[in-house]
Amino acid sequence: MEEKDTLNGLTHFDRQGNARMVDVTGKQVTDREASACGRIRMNEAAYRAVKEGTAQKGDVLGTARVAGIMGAKKTSELIPLCHILPITKCGVTFELSDEEQSVTALCTVRVSGKTGVEMEALTGVNIALLTIYDMVKALDKSMILDRIYLTHKTGGKSGEIRGEYHD
Amino acid sequence: MEEKDTLNGLTHFDRQGNARMVDVTGKQVTDREASACGRIRMNEAAYRAVKEGTAQKGDVLGTARVAGIMGAKKTSELIPLCHILPITKCGVTFELSDEEQSVTALCTVRVSGKTGVEMEALTGVNIALLTIYDMVKALDKSMILDRIYLTHKTGGKSGEIRGEYHD
Amino acid sequence: MEEKDTLNGLTHFDRQGNARMVDVTGKQVTDREASACGRIRMNEAAYRAVKEGTAQKGDVLGTARVAGIMGAKKTSELIPLCHILPITKCGVTFELSDEEQSVTALCTVRVSGKTGVEMEALTGVNIALLTIYDMVKALDKSMILDRIYLTHKTGGKSGEIRGEYHD
Amino acid sequence: MEEKDTLNGLTHFDRQGNARMVDVTGKQVTDREASACGRIRMNEAAYRAVKEGTAQKGDVLGTARVAGIMGAKKTSELIPLCHILPITKCGVTFELSDEEQSVTALCTVRVSGKTGVEMEALTGVNIALLTIYDMVKALDKSMILDRIYLTHKTGGKSGEIRGEYHD
Amino acid sequence: MEEKDTLNGLTHFDRQGNARMVDVTGKQVTDREASACGRIRMNEAAYRAVKEGTAQKGDVLGTARVAGIMGAKKTSELIPLCHILPITKCGVTFELSDEEQSVTALCTVRVSGKTGVEMEALTGVNIALLTIYDMVKALDKSMILDRIYLTHKTGGKSGEIRGEYHD
Amino acid sequence: MEEKDTLNGLTHFDRQGNARMVDVTGKQVTDREASACGRIRMNEAAYRAVKEGTAQKGDVLGTARVAGIMGAKKTSELIPLCHILPITKCGVTFELSDEEQSVTALCTVRVSGKTGVEMEALTGVNIALLTIYDMVKALDKSMILDRIYLTHKTGGKSGEIRGEYHD
Repeated sequence: MEEKDTLNGLTHFDRQGNARMVDVTGKQVTDREASACGRIRMNEAAYRAVKEGTAQKGDVLGTARVAGIMGAKKTSELIPLCHILPITKCGVTFELSDEEQSVTALCTVRVSGKTGVEMEALTGVNIALLTIYDMVKALDKSMILDRIYLTHKTGGKSGEIRGEYHD
Repeated sequence: MEEKDTLNGLTHFDRQGNARMVDVTGKQVTDREASACGRIRMNEAAYRAVKEGTAQKGDVLGTARVAGIMGAKKTSELIPLCHILPITKCGVTFELSDEEQSVTALCTVRVSGKTGVEMEALTGVNIALLTIYDMVKALDKSMILDRIYLTHKTGGKSGEIRGEYHD
Repeated sequence: MEEKDTLNGLTHFDRQGNARMVDVTGKQVTDREASACGRIRMNEAAYRAVKEGTAQKGDVLGTARVAGIMGAKKTSELIPLCHILPITKCGVTFELSDEEQSVTALCTVRVSGKTGVEMEALTGVNIALLTIYDMVKALDKSMILDRIYLTHKTGGKSGEIRGEYHD
Repeated sequence: MEEKDTLNGLTHFDRQGNARMVDVTGKQVTDREASACGRIRMNEAAYRAVKEGTAQKGDVLGTARVAGIMGAKKTSELIPLCHILPITKCGVTFELSDEEQSVTALCTVRVSGKTGVEMEALTGVNIALLTIYDMVKALDKSMILDRIYLTHKTGGKSGEIRGEYHD
Repeated sequence: MEEKDTLNGLTHFDRQGNARMVDVTGKQVTDREASACGRIRMNEAAYRAVKEGTAQKGDVLGTARVAGIMGAKKTSELIPLCHILPITKCGVTFELSDEEQSVTALCTVRVSGKTGVEMEALTGVNIALLTIYDMVKALDKSMILDRIYLTHKTGGKSGEIRGEYHD
Repeated sequence: MEEKDTLNGLTHFDRQGNARMVDVTGKQVTDREASACGRIRMNEAAYRAVKEGTAQKGDVLGTARVAGIMGAKKTSELIPLCHILPITKCGVTFELSDEEQSVTALCTVRVSGKTGVEMEALTGVNIALLTIYDMVKALDKSMILDRIYLTHKTGGKSGEIRGEYHD
């Protein structure tokens, strides 16, 4: 735990129950990495538009990738108790599934810092998926985002963590 | 369609395939509303911490609610082709399910504007869920966000839309 | 009151006690104006530096004025439940008091909108004062900000309001 | 002129010489449009990379387009005395010149508002050009941005304005 | 002094009188901390609403705390010449005085950095107080912010500083 | 090159052609500096207003200097693939040319970091020039920005770089 003065294991609260940004002043600067993923499911028309756009004109995923990277950089502005982290790497990739008519976004973030970057990776995924949603919503008004979770994390005190989807 | 010069129904692209912010200059200002929801599933320790905090100290959901509202206001900064919309109402509520050990966030947004607010409602939901994730991640490293979708939309040209979850 | 569903006159909460952005969708667009002021007191060295800078080189107040105007534009990003308002005027002026060794900032904001701009005027004042503080803090480490309040407000349902300082 | 109290035709100053956001409260809401352009010149390696990327992988201009649109939306945060404008359209296109080894960016912005959008169009151009610079700077450390100017403006009190490049 | 080329002790100006961000490149990274406080006085109805909300529903101070922490993180965006500092801790607490019908906010910030965080602490206080103002302004239109000052600072070249309120 | 997995020397793309923020995790923290310049040409009325304002009231360049510094701090928000850099110095100066009726802005930025600050210096120049444009556009609707380029860079792996204007 970062601080002794913690509410039942919830490091983002002091014992009086007040929210706070956790004190990481005394922690070591180490190289840390986190990856997260998430999925958006859509109808055939929307899926075909996304898929064709990546090969030709109308590049939905190119725009979503840029949005995801820019979103990951904004994490500390969006999530109230996140630390400002000058991240040293950020990438977003996509996998298309014809069978599911879905796109899965994967975001990987690195930092040399005092705290981890899982929230940055998750934010990158969410903003990338929302951007896809925005760009094809004229074709499908019932898309669903799901299976958003942390897939991998290294470099912190808790060692290597691997996440898997579970129902 | 907002513009004739559209790529296969994808209003966010011109016929050359270039991404753009759609021209809504000529559209009517009407009252529009959208609601979206989404779920976060967690382990027992995390769920109990969230649930107890709402009653006593350590108010995770209070912080997530504020973050969701502030996130909805930032939508046009996050989603590249979204219009800047001076939204006139935003609320975020939560439902807890003991059975699923999950929290469902619901965000409702209104505007008197030329275009709809579904992206604002969805962004509010996503940022609220990510904030919950951040605040209890010390207790559960394998939480999952899912069932994020538009539940209701009124006031646009497409009339009333109701969304339901589907597998 | 903007909404019936209000907690004991606190419009920013629903009856369940949840914070929210108040619904102003149905309100009239009218011209609204608000002015606020605030004071910073400093030692002789700092005060002289501010005063001389306005006449010659080292223009502390010029920088503080720009910061105040830019700060007023950011109000809805800073104050969680404030509406996004496309303000139509913003000005910041300063008065120096040799006797008190103080600077008083006055910020006036206008909008054609559905809700008032007192928070914008107050935010403009606070950011202007903090900027003065920052620029002369090498000369005085014990400055004090005080007498920050709304001096004037017109255009809303509550009619004209005039504020005065009171102990 | 928007205000009588103006310093020698400089609407952004009052008669005392204080910078301010001009009062446009009393102006009419009309449809306004502005276009601006600008050029970046580069060496052969960089130019070829940009040109090939638009056809295949490594889409520099796709990223620069998104950045330009997002930058135009941020104009009022960047230019101290600009009004917040909920712009209703924004597009960025590019022209490549093999002869000059240059890319010219063109940005067009629309609004239904009380003041014009020339700064938004110019900001969109500048951010798009800077993004191109960033993405190919590994190949050319002596690129030059030039010929940045307003090409067209309609809808304000000054009527239609057409700009041309001049030495 | 950080730089020799300084205007009469005003480090934020060069000798020509031009404002600038001070050069701290050559300074040591050390652990630094600053605390600031400030007060908001209100009428009985507003004070009672704040006080009851902390115990039950309508948690004004919970929202203000989150706003203060997020505001502290935005300091370098708000105060023109402040450095970007990846702060490592931020907390906001409140004290209520029945006698004065006032709330005092206290903000403490830490960083491992090359320059201090007093502006971050002061910004956190100001945004927290403005948020309280916003949330109870329906009940009191003549609230006053005062007694805003630095209470404590350690870790810089100037050693430990303790601030006190003075008339 | 920062990464082996690079597309034809374009470090901002992986071999599949996907844009990304380059991984600088493994690079050394060194002191780095970059300077950039750029010019705005205007008609006689506008030029005279700028020149007189610097001596007396109506300080266009003072406002543009502040905007340029604040703009440089925002670089990573504006340029999609730029790293967040806690810059340690930023200054903007101006040179006036009576002959050309032009203002040249020069911006110098420093950082102790893992990557260079040329984009920060260029962004500072562009925002300063756009601010001048905004403030005198009532007097001249055909101003032109040009000769924007990197003049100097030190501290990175590529050693010292000096840029010159070329036609």
